[in-house]
Amino acid sequence: MCEAHAYLLDKNGNEELFLKSVDKVIPSEDGITLVSIFSERKKIKAFIKEMALLEHKIILEEFGE
Amino acid sequence: MCEAHAYLLDKNGNEELFLKSVDKVIPSEDGITLVSIFSERKKIKAFIKEMALLEHKIILEEFGE
Repeated sequence: MCEAHAYLLDKNGNEELFLKSVDKVIPSEDGITLVSIFSERKKIKAFIKEMALLEHKIILEEFGE
Repeated sequence: MCEAHAYLLDKNGNEELFLKSVDKVIPSEDGITLVSIFSERKKIKAFIKEMALLEHKIILEEFGE
């Protein structure tokens, strides 16, 4: 399966798992909606910092102040 | 392999292939850089409209006027 896992960068630059097995990624003006292969849906006020699909990784960073 | 293909929406809403076999997706303020598994690198003034990883699809839309 070719899903990826979404990680959120914390203030120290560490990656915290935010949602496993992401299928859909839908950015909008006020954040990003992620939907996993298990139909779990999470929205967060963040932007995509980088994706590395071969590593199954989506790195998110929360909007600054 | 878990790369995806990037498509650009044209004015009629059709999907044109922009870059095959994308591994890395790196958004920035002025667009998106895509890097394929063959190390081909393309930058475009566009945003991610949607990604569907199980379908290996990244849909891009160019910035409006």
